[in-house]
Amino acid sequence: MKKVDHIGIAVSSLADALVLYTEQLGMLHVKTETVESQGVNVAFLDAGNIMIELLEPINPDSPVATFIKKRGQGIHHIAYGVENINWRIEEMKESGIQMIDNAAKPGACGAQIAFMHPKSTGGVLMELCEKGEGTA
Amino acid sequence: MKKVDHIGIAVSSLADALVLYTEQLGMLHVKTETVESQGVNVAFLDAGNIMIELLEPINPDSPVATFIKKRGQGIHHIAYGVENINWRIEEMKESGIQMIDNAAKPGACGAQIAFMHPKSTGGVLMELCEKGEGTA
Repeated sequence: MKKVDHIGIAVSSLADALVLYTEQLGMLHVKTETVESQGVNVAFLDAGNIMIELLEPINPDSPVATFIKKRGQGIHHIAYGVENINWRIEEMKESGIQMIDNAAKPGACGAQIAFMHPKSTGGVLMELCEKGEGTA
Repeated sequence: MKKVDHIGIAVSSLADALVLYTEQLGMLHVKTETVESQGVNVAFLDAGNIMIELLEPINPDSPVATFIKKRGQGIHHIAYGVENINWRIEEMKESGIQMIDNAAKPGACGAQIAFMHPKSTGGVLMELCEKGEGTA
C-alpha cells in the first residue's frame, strides 16, 4: 500500500460534524453525497494530504448505524488508494488476507471499493479504493 | 489542519502486526522505539503520504493497554502535523475544543504532541504533532 486515500469516520449528525471539521479544525468541505447502497450520507473534507470521509447513517439498518450503536461515533475505516483494484483484491487474498468483498463494488464519488475483514487486519477495517476520473 | 501526519493503531503484538503491515500490506518498516512515558513500543510504517504508527503496550497500566482491554485492537488516534504546537493548542481551545494536554509533551521520534479530548471531537482521539528536525 503506497497511499492512504481517506479515513472514514462514523458520525451521528453530519451537520454537527461539519461544524467541528470546518469551523473548529479548519478543513475545506469538498462535497456531500448520499450512497443509498451503503445507507449513508457521505461528506468529504480536505485534510491536505488525505481526505476525511464523514459517514452519517440514513437508516437504522445501515452498517454505520450498527457501528455507532455498538461503539459510538468514531474512526470507522482506513482506505488505501490503489489502481487495478480487482488485481489488488487477488493479491491481498494470496497474501492471506480475508476480503469482505471479493469483487469491487461502487462507493462514493464514483470510486470502486472493497473491504478487508478486520479479523485478518488486526481489528482495523481497511478499504481498497480506486478512484475514477475527476473524482474527489 | 492541513496535513495528517500519522494514524495510530493499537496492537497486542508488534511482531504479529509487523508481519501484516510489511509482508501482507507491503509497507516499509521505518523504525521502532520505546516511549516509556506512554508505556508503549512504537513502530513506524511508511504508508506513502502518511505514516502508520503501531502502538504495543509494554505494561498493563498504559493507556493503550486499557484501550485494547475495552475495545480490542484497532485504530487509536489521528495525528495532524502542525507547526508552533503551543500556539495551535491555544487556537483549538479558543475554538471550543477541550484539550487533554494543555501544553505539548514529548512523543515518539522527538516530536512534541498534545491530544484533544474525544468528547469534543466526535468520539475521535486527535493529536497535534510537531516534528523536530530529522524525525520520521
